[in-house]
Amino acid sequence: MNCPICQAQNEEILWQNEDLRIIVVNEDANVPAFCRVIWQSHQAEMTDLNETQRAVLMNAVYHTETAMREVLRPTKINLASLGNVVPHLHWHVIARFDCDAYFPAPIWANAQRENTLRLPENWTEQVKNILAQKLV
Amino acid sequence: MNCPICQAQNEEILWQNEDLRIIVVNEDANVPAFCRVIWQSHQAEMTDLNETQRAVLMNAVYHTETAMREVLRPTKINLASLGNVVPHLHWHVIARFDCDAYFPAPIWANAQRENTLRLPENWTEQVKNILAQKLV
Repeated sequence: MNCPICQAQNEEILWQNEDLRIIVVNEDANVPAFCRVIWQSHQAEMTDLNETQRAVLMNAVYHTETAMREVLRPTKINLASLGNVVPHLHWHVIARFDCDAYFPAPIWANAQRENTLRLPENWTEQVKNILAQKLV
Repeated sequence: MNCPICQAQNEEILWQNEDLRIIVVNEDANVPAFCRVIWQSHQAEMTDLNETQRAVLMNAVYHTETAMREVLRPTKINLASLGNVVPHLHWHVIARFDCDAYFPAPIWANAQRENTLRLPENWTEQVKNILAQKLV
């Protein structure tokens, strides 16, 4: 199977186990506070998982949200599982700020302004430390 | 509080109880298969709910996804909780098709083509009937 999420390399991994991994996403300089929770197994939809698996995945999403809120104090968290391009289950967890390039539109809309957001340089390290304490 | 989700009227409600309601969204003709699961109480983030409340809300999202998959056989389901404009917790549940106006981009991007999708006229009725059987 030729899935870029199955075959991903050089990801900045914040936490992982056999079920899932949590990475930092640096695909768009206008979206500087972006994590992704990826189900390790190649499944497309939440309802392709059983109830326990869904709960495990969402627990990781919630802990990621909590850690990003604690470290970054964003205006809003955006959660999304889309997967139209790569139908391998993954959750976008995005900290949004009213000064960010797209706010209040979704990050998939056209940018409305230059990004003036400056985050603490070590925010990913702080999130990683929180996840290490909270997830087992 | 001047919240348009708290004050909403004339919604096409598929299912509701005291915790949440599931509605049909007809805001964009290019997105004809769009439901929304709304937490009744005015909360902003998933992590503002307790664990039981999150599970109740996601259970409704999963049942909505399952019903839309069963009735519409979409290419992909998109799930999103954004709320930048209206920070009152709600989940977009969108059935996507490879012939839809935005595919494979998110529906918040620019449309790529005219919508040629024709859905069964009674799809919302079918989803409503499934939800009535599955949710209590």
